[in-house]
Amino acid sequence: MENIKVAIVGYGNIGRFSLEAVDAAGDMECVGIVRRKASAEGMPELNGRKVVTDIAELGKVDVAILSVPSRKVEENAAKYLAMGINTVDSFDIHTDICGLRSRLDEVAKAHGAVSVISAGWDPGSDSVVRALMQGLAPKGISYTNFGPGRSMGHSVAAKAVEGVKDALSVTIPVGTGLHRRMVYVSLEEGADFAKIEKTILSDPYFCHDDSHVIKVDDVDALNDMGHGVNLVRKGVSGATHNQLLEFNMKINNPALTGQVLVMAARASVRQKPGCYTMIEIPVIDMLEGDREQLIRSLV
Amino acid sequence: MENIKVAIVGYGNIGRFSLEAVDAAGDMECVGIVRRKASAEGMPELNGRKVVTDIAELGKVDVAILSVPSRKVEENAAKYLAMGINTVDSFDIHTDICGLRSRLDEVAKAHGAVSVISAGWDPGSDSVVRALMQGLAPKGISYTNFGPGRSMGHSVAAKAVEGVKDALSVTIPVGTGLHRRMVYVSLEEGADFAKIEKTILSDPYFCHDDSHVIKVDDVDALNDMGHGVNLVRKGVSGATHNQLLEFNMKINNPALTGQVLVMAARASVRQKPGCYTMIEIPVIDMLEGDREQLIRSLV
Repeated sequence: MENIKVAIVGYGNIGRFSLEAVDAAGDMECVGIVRRKASAEGMPELNGRKVVTDIAELGKVDVAILSVPSRKVEENAAKYLAMGINTVDSFDIHTDICGLRSRLDEVAKAHGAVSVISAGWDPGSDSVVRALMQGLAPKGISYTNFGPGRSMGHSVAAKAVEGVKDALSVTIPVGTGLHRRMVYVSLEEGADFAKIEKTILSDPYFCHDDSHVIKVDDVDALNDMGHGVNLVRKGVSGATHNQLLEFNMKINNPALTGQVLVMAARASVRQKPGCYTMIEIPVIDMLEGDREQLIRSLV
Repeated sequence: MENIKVAIVGYGNIGRFSLEAVDAAGDMECVGIVRRKASAEGMPELNGRKVVTDIAELGKVDVAILSVPSRKVEENAAKYLAMGINTVDSFDIHTDICGLRSRLDEVAKAHGAVSVISAGWDPGSDSVVRALMQGLAPKGISYTNFGPGRSMGHSVAAKAVEGVKDALSVTIPVGTGLHRRMVYVSLEEGADFAKIEKTILSDPYFCHDDSHVIKVDDVDALNDMGHGVNLVRKGVSGATHNQLLEFNMKINNPALTGQVLVMAARASVRQKPGCYTMIEIPVIDMLEGDREQLIRSLV
């Protein structure tokens, strides 16, 4: 079996951790990094790697891991799929997952390629667990409780407020799918904290939750990449009530996302042309190793 | 969409709960029960149902749910697959899962049918979670901790000891995949408890674990069908250690098994001919409902 040849498109946090996950996999190799600038300045871990602006410079590529922001996923995916290269991403704009899937499905099929979308941990591996739980107890309620961990979207929203130098919004689970927002801000000189606090608390990102704004000197000193989830379902199997199901993770967030992208990349070469979410793919296709051996050790 | 026509083969505990799960499903119907005796005596819930000895009497059947002991699965599956009827079972003899899969795969393909084997909660839905966890943290150790709940195999082994009238062996998780066995026995008149205790504790079923034998008057008074599992993995995503993953259930055991068999039955009509374990099937195929709608609500 030849190694799966992977290109990493975009080299932020997720790109770096995806590279580590590709390197750790025994059945794939990273053939290069695609960036806007063909430079690895200040990135010693890229020494000896090909860093290019055009994927065509990398020779044969089986899968492109798109570690780009969600709003950049579609244009990138469409471009690489049209070249017959599989793509995987961790697209997380929930309201457009079905739309993206249907649009990329068409491109993928037209070019004999496979796209696996929304392959992070949520959406992604959590989705697989949520789907399984719904099957195990078809009547009932599932709650996804995130955190504690940084919310990128909320942090960006708080940082955008005038007078805020830096911001970190930490998501705290309070149960039943509700969350507290702890917003740590450092201020520009002369900024009015009371006014900033009021602006943040009335922002649509924060006004529906129990949000708290705290002034700190150095936001970066608070940053860690740990995150978590608590996924619970209480429901009915057949006619039997009170079936209790729970899934918990405490994880490094970008490291897990990079690993899920690698699972999706591996699965992509085992699917027929088209676009898939993770719940549409057999879990065994995401795993490294001999199929019979995996069944023997995991079933 | 026509309902999936399901026959239930065998009508013990699992058969009864499978029937409830089929009845609760909006996309399938139970067309009858296949038993050794075509009688529903003492089973008022079967009033108005077809109870037969030969599945041919039920007309068109899409899937046979084999709620028979594991050692009876293969002959039943082979028989129905040869008739072009899909089969699902909760075969749990771990060492022969790969063998059974390969033998039934041949029969299934020869007759254009689908077999889903080992579709209980362990092996079964737990296997899906174990496989997913291995993908999320490829390096590391998983532990499956069962209980508290009754172990059928251990209870039968204890009951077989001379002088034992009835026995219940409860599996207690003590972590890292190890288990304590609490064995409750009622005795035949004149039986010697000390001797029975010694026999049980030296039995291969019990001598490797921390086992305890307790004399009670009425074993049945202790019986409940609750069970549980705690599946944990601590491992490495890419190069990042200490990723902590956990899955817990507290459930009615036969009710969950019946529900998983229904998930497998539904999935069976969506697979190509052959034999599958649950980790080889997309989770979405196990769920009732419109595919796009499921993606919208679960991913």
